[in-house]
Amino acid sequence: MQRSPIKHCKQCGTAVVYRLPDDGDTKERAVCPHCNTVHYENPLNVVGTVPHWGDKVLLCKRNIEPRWGKWTLPAGFMELGETTTEGAARETEEEAGAQFEMEDLLTLLNVARVGQVHLFYRARLLSDTFNPGSETIEARLFSEDEIPWDEIAFRTVKETLDRYFADRRSGHFTIHQVNID
Amino acid sequence: MQRSPIKHCKQCGTAVVYRLPDDGDTKERAVCPHCNTVHYENPLNVVGTVPHWGDKVLLCKRNIEPRWGKWTLPAGFMELGETTTEGAARETEEEAGAQFEMEDLLTLLNVARVGQVHLFYRARLLSDTFNPGSETIEARLFSEDEIPWDEIAFRTVKETLDRYFADRRSGHFTIHQVNID
Repeated sequence: MQRSPIKHCKQCGTAVVYRLPDDGDTKERAVCPHCNTVHYENPLNVVGTVPHWGDKVLLCKRNIEPRWGKWTLPAGFMELGETTTEGAARETEEEAGAQFEMEDLLTLLNVARVGQVHLFYRARLLSDTFNPGSETIEARLFSEDEIPWDEIAFRTVKETLDRYFADRRSGHFTIHQVNID
Repeated sequence: MQRSPIKHCKQCGTAVVYRLPDDGDTKERAVCPHCNTVHYENPLNVVGTVPHWGDKVLLCKRNIEPRWGKWTLPAGFMELGETTTEGAARETEEEAGAQFEMEDLLTLLNVARVGQVHLFYRARLLSDTFNPGSETIEARLFSEDEIPWDEIAFRTVKETLDRYFADRRSGHFTIHQVNID
């Protein structure tokens, strides 16, 4: 899902202009010169889980771009009509085919450069067999010293794994807000 | 900011059709029959604060629709290019003209019915004088028993105030996830 600039009005198809709207807004928006529709663009939420089994966590080897072949936690764009936890559960089912019990929020990561907020929940696995979907080459459990740190797909995933294992060692899970440049 | 359906392609202006995209996606999207652009619609984040001064919190009387004249916590739609806390700070400056120090996340509220996630941070006020912007009729401090509970603009604000005062009484602040029907 890439963010391409708005060129035409979603209501009437006329070419838009970028300007300050007439309502006192202080940001330039794509405004339709024909029907005056103002088009807002806002950050997207990515929701996922840290599925854990004993001292191990579940990673998925990506079968899609970007970062084909790299390892990730199950996660994806939150959809309309679902809550953050429902979205995180859906992605975990789709990408890992895992059975689990959802737990608390672990990380809230701002990636302002690309207009995203990532939310990862802990999820207690109920089985160590997985049935990953087509977006995943392989789903596998890793202990902390087995994690392929140089082959992790995204910085948000690395930061989340770091926080998970640190909290696990301390015996106390908390919620971490992380800003990623 | 209302969510109106996509009728025309943002790339080329052609009338879109709602169908499953060709990439294996399982949700119907607005797809352009001319240039094949797929238009995604996703939840929006609303970010705000609970500004507090001693045993009181700051509420703003709304000078805009919806809920003109009702009381709210400073909050608004998160913008591209900012973090959740930067957005919450911006709204607090714009709506209340308050000086404050940002603290931790207090509530994450899912309002799936309207495709929104609301995030409220605690904010320690550094002064009890305010300079609210044009969106606010009046900014005023309220202790718990002074809160105009029947005149609160939004359920997310009421739920957040409930959690704030309950945590304050218990002497321990935590992060609450709340799903609103």
